[in-house]
Amino acid sequence: MKLPSLKNIEKARTNISGFIHRTPVLTSKQINEITGAELFIKCENFQKVGAFKFRGATNAILNLPNELKNKGVATHSSGNHAQALALAAKMNGVKATIVMPSNSPEVKKKAVEGYGAEVVLCEPNLKARESTLAEVIAENGATEIHPYKNFDVISGQGTAALELLEDADDLDIIMTPVGGGGLTGGCSTAVKAIDSNIKFIAVEPEGADDAYRSFKSQQWVPSEDPDTICDGLLTSTGEINFEIIKNNVDDILTVSDSAVLKAMRLYFERMKIVTEPSGAVTLAAVLEYPGLFAGKRTGIVISGGNIDISRFGYFFHGGFLG
Amino acid sequence: MKLPSLKNIEKARTNISGFIHRTPVLTSKQINEITGAELFIKCENFQKVGAFKFRGATNAILNLPNELKNKGVATHSSGNHAQALALAAKMNGVKATIVMPSNSPEVKKKAVEGYGAEVVLCEPNLKARESTLAEVIAENGATEIHPYKNFDVISGQGTAALELLEDADDLDIIMTPVGGGGLTGGCSTAVKAIDSNIKFIAVEPEGADDAYRSFKSQQWVPSEDPDTICDGLLTSTGEINFEIIKNNVDDILTVSDSAVLKAMRLYFERMKIVTEPSGAVTLAAVLEYPGLFAGKRTGIVISGGNIDISRFGYFFHGGFLG
Repeated sequence: MKLPSLKNIEKARTNISGFIHRTPVLTSKQINEITGAELFIKCENFQKVGAFKFRGATNAILNLPNELKNKGVATHSSGNHAQALALAAKMNGVKATIVMPSNSPEVKKKAVEGYGAEVVLCEPNLKARESTLAEVIAENGATEIHPYKNFDVISGQGTAALELLEDADDLDIIMTPVGGGGLTGGCSTAVKAIDSNIKFIAVEPEGADDAYRSFKSQQWVPSEDPDTICDGLLTSTGEINFEIIKNNVDDILTVSDSAVLKAMRLYFERMKIVTEPSGAVTLAAVLEYPGLFAGKRTGIVISGGNIDISRFGYFFHGGFLG
Repeated sequence: MKLPSLKNIEKARTNISGFIHRTPVLTSKQINEITGAELFIKCENFQKVGAFKFRGATNAILNLPNELKNKGVATHSSGNHAQALALAAKMNGVKATIVMPSNSPEVKKKAVEGYGAEVVLCEPNLKARESTLAEVIAENGATEIHPYKNFDVISGQGTAALELLEDADDLDIIMTPVGGGGLTGGCSTAVKAIDSNIKFIAVEPEGADDAYRSFKSQQWVPSEDPDTICDGLLTSTGEINFEIIKNNVDDILTVSDSAVLKAMRLYFERMKIVTEPSGAVTLAAVLEYPGLFAGKRTGIVISGGNIDISRFGYFFHGGFLG
């Protein structure tokens, strides 16, 4: 696969600008005082469907030729990409079919159906997801929109970095969470093309550190038995995404789940905003490695804010963190 | 006491503009679809110290003559006004003394001290709070800044309505929470002076409905044994504030605690923002009386976002709402 360039990301931005929210870049004096860093926080938790995924899904659909649009799009996902593709399809009059594991929470199925997509349930394992998706595509000729191993998806995710660079001057560092590598791939491409002096760091949970291990060995390895509260970052980084990461990312940091909870708590208490665990890993990295960020102008992306309120309550009720 | 007029509120706005956040007015397509209303949400949960109280406290301090500034300010409060006065005093180089009940959570005392104010503890009852405050004032000559029975405080709170009117056109209705009546007094004064066709509604929890009972009988009655999760609205409405309410408020609605929790949940899930129970009563009113708001352009104020994360977790862990 060809790798996206800055030009593709700028084109994506033009394409999707009428569909997405331009999310704010917020600052918090209190969190800066606590961390010793100077943070510029790109709030993709305020994006449509509550996550950056809507950027890439929208760009992918807009780039389909009309004859493919007419046949619809499909993917397998139980997460933010499912809702993102469903809504992006709806807004463009395209039919979407989403293969979801049968054990997905009812609320997630309802959300996808609420956006007008068809949900096809399958056994809850990767093999069944892939084979069911293949059946769907064989049947209706839909185009698969992969959540991160897709040129237009990666280009779309990179638009978050363009906005961040416009809204925060003279950044020393930019950080994104890394799971499949769509957000990190797109954003690191944009950042390095525009200002190669900015250090680009990706952040991964300790319990799902395949990108970290790949990066340190410079050889792609898959995710195995991931164990972390960051449910959006369990997946293996795509091989193609890893190629981009090797080209553009300066370092990968891993963070503990307890640092992630501390970060979610700071966002809640000091900024009154809701983040999902995966979305809070970048602030968690600032908490875990303060020396790297002291006095540095650092742009960090909150990738999403989708967390069941009962799960959030479970984490924090009665002083879970002590 | 003279009642504030629009002119006083406009002057307050000029005074405090360099100190406060101009908070955003947000909209949510999803919440509009759920409620059938068209809501313009003034987010004072993003105000400094996490509540609108910072507006009034700042205006009160700025209006003190220099010889009184030199002697400092004092109040009794265990809530948002305590932090608001402490920070406003600090930003203006004025000494603040805050009388707090001895059973106030440690985190609240720490927050006030963190803003550089002196905390004086007293027995946890209104009489002790008032007598301790009197002692403080007798000793150091500080000026009492009452949380709502204060001309400049009321004028300062009204500035939230000026911003809301600028950021949302052609509103049919504006709603604020009512506790002591500072926010409602200031905002209703501004709104009625600028456009008397806008209906002004105040919202109170069922379990602390003294303003509602006063309003319906047109005779001031105090709060007695209030029982609600809306800890910012337990207090009696001030007599002076009630005079303003009689002049400017078209109706008072009461809401159940369960509607308040539903509203907090909608803010969390659909907008990814944190509200305290008192701050969510206005959306709760839209949920409880949908017929009043169907198709109406309604401006609502979220008064604050200060809630202990463990208390928030307690409300929602494991599906507290069923």
